Amino acid sequence: MGEFELINHYFAAAPCAQGGEGVALGIGDDCALLGLPPGEQLAVSTDTLVAGVHFPSVCDPLLLGQRSLAVAASDLAAMGATAIGFTLALTLPDVGAEWLAAFAEGLGRMAKRCRMSLVGGDTTRGPLSITVTVFGRVPAGQALRRSGARPGDLLCVGGTLGKAAGALPLVLGEREAPAELAEPLLEHYWSPMPQLGLGQLLRGQATSALDISDGLLADCGHIARASGVALEVNLEQVPVSPALQGFLGLDGARLAALTGGDDYVLAFTLPPAALPGLIDRAPGQVYVIGRVLDGKGVTLRDAQGQDITPVQRGYQHFRETP
Amino acid sequence: MGEFELINHYFAAAPCAQGGEGVALGIGDDCALLGLPPGEQLAVSTDTLVAGVHFPSVCDPLLLGQRSLAVAASDLAAMGATAIGFTLALTLPDVGAEWLAAFAEGLGRMAKRCRMSLVGGDTTRGPLSITVTVFGRVPAGQALRRSGARPGDLLCVGGTLGKAAGALPLVLGEREAPAELAEPLLEHYWSPMPQLGLGQLLRGQATSALDISDGLLADCGHIARASGVALEVNLEQVPVSPALQGFLGLDGARLAALTGGDDYVLAFTLPPAALPGLIDRAPGQVYVIGRVLDGKGVTLRDAQGQDITPVQRGYQHFRETP
Repeated sequence: MGEFELINHYFAAAPCAQGGEGVALGIGDDCALLGLPPGEQLAVSTDTLVAGVHFPSVCDPLLLGQRSLAVAASDLAAMGATAIGFTLALTLPDVGAEWLAAFAEGLGRMAKRCRMSLVGGDTTRGPLSITVTVFGRVPAGQALRRSGARPGDLLCVGGTLGKAAGALPLVLGEREAPAELAEPLLEHYWSPMPQLGLGQLLRGQATSALDISDGLLADCGHIARASGVALEVNLEQVPVSPALQGFLGLDGARLAALTGGDDYVLAFTLPPAALPGLIDRAPGQVYVIGRVLDGKGVTLRDAQGQDITPVQRGYQHFRETP
Repeated sequence: MGEFELINHYFAAAPCAQGGEGVALGIGDDCALLGLPPGEQLAVSTDTLVAGVHFPSVCDPLLLGQRSLAVAASDLAAMGATAIGFTLALTLPDVGAEWLAAFAEGLGRMAKRCRMSLVGGDTTRGPLSITVTVFGRVPAGQALRRSGARPGDLLCVGGTLGKAAGALPLVLGEREAPAELAEPLLEHYWSPMPQLGLGQLLRGQATSALDISDGLLADCGHIARASGVALEVNLEQVPVSPALQGFLGLDGARLAALTGGDDYVLAFTLPPAALPGLIDRAPGQVYVIGRVLDGKGVTLRDAQGQDITPVQRGYQHFRETP
């Protein structure tokens, strides 16, 4: 048995690989087998993280394991799905037992938090890269899409934004910050918590949803385009965390919140009538930041209602050409 | 929109991404949505191919596209599943339009042959690597497992073996051969045809099955271990193609068939009573090569019934320790 085959056996023995609800057959055969309750559909998404591109080549493998799964599971949250499991395609330059144990520990912690089972995978030799494919289930016809936003809906997000973008100079060792500022930012970067519970609560309520990965304004552009509507974002309402504001100042924090990626917080639209009930069931997870209008594109407004939409090169991609 | 986001849009527009049976929602939202007929389970498998490890760094992208999907879809065949779709995680050092077009063409050809839809993916910058996750459906409880072989069963394979291993020196440019020998070998290496139809015919007939990827003897070891039985392989019965025998001679061809990997041909066990009916329905795809016995491990016998099981270092992994 080769060393990479040994690793597959190693992962097969991990606690998160011991099956769970919806997993009829886990690791060890040619395929895993998943079952779905009658009337439900399977939600599927794939994400790849490459060393030196999506994370620093030298980093804590436990944190990397957590983050690898969280980033992928966030797509399930964005569809309103209940998580079932995931496959892991892990490419490694060499086999280090300590590295593997820590990576598996981080992966397992996030799997437990998301109630997901590792159902299959492939470990190969090569430059460090991690592809996670996640599986969830959602009642047929109830998945949250990007395409249902309607004029008159409110635009909301599920938490404070910009923390991951703010954390990046800390992750890369380019800047330092006092522990009380750095820790919450780094925690969010390495261990974003997929908003699976919120996503499920949004089923039948939200008219559109996605998870913010490209940056708030860019992702609002995705909803606007898919739904054939315009979105208006009120800068004053965009929530930023105290730690981010302490680290970058208010303007810097807002810029990170608007354009930074990797938030993995949900953005969604819903009719105003649905707001009170949702706030009741998801306290602290619903921030109204704007509204849906007839038209196209995304407009950013300041406290005075002035259009301050950035149009400089690099931001233009979220503005539709007329 | 960044160039890698553009590539995602490029694949989303490919003919194989236009949905198909079982695909409720394809590329373009946070997740794809797959539907399953009542009483069926989802079969899932992931395979990674890394440049310079699993294929030459410089090779025809059309052939690579074909092979990337075929290798993964073969795991669906081994479970007796009907193919539905796949996700593609493609990591590329840079964006070459010609390379991408050819790769997508190859991928699309194999998708059409297997009746699969591209349902999602992620394109990232980094060293060339391809992870394909495949999805199929199979009636609950009828998936072909590795664990059901019983003493008295026949051991069979679905086609001639060793062609991919035989092709390797041609692929790597280490040897040359006349076109009439080289072409069928290279064809099998770059475009193995997943035996999806055969796998489906084996449901309810075969007691165990897998696709040969590690080499016949090693893979027979997997069945023996999972089923708690011994397997006996008769060397004389192991089928090799005329091209492989012409290229390597009979002994070389047999060695490639026994120990070469990447065949992606099914190996399976079935009760003798099921053989005539199966041969009727899958003419030319059923070769009896041995039998299942009480005990453990894999034994290779020559025409005289002598035990000629290789025990040298490197082959020992398919022999159980007593």
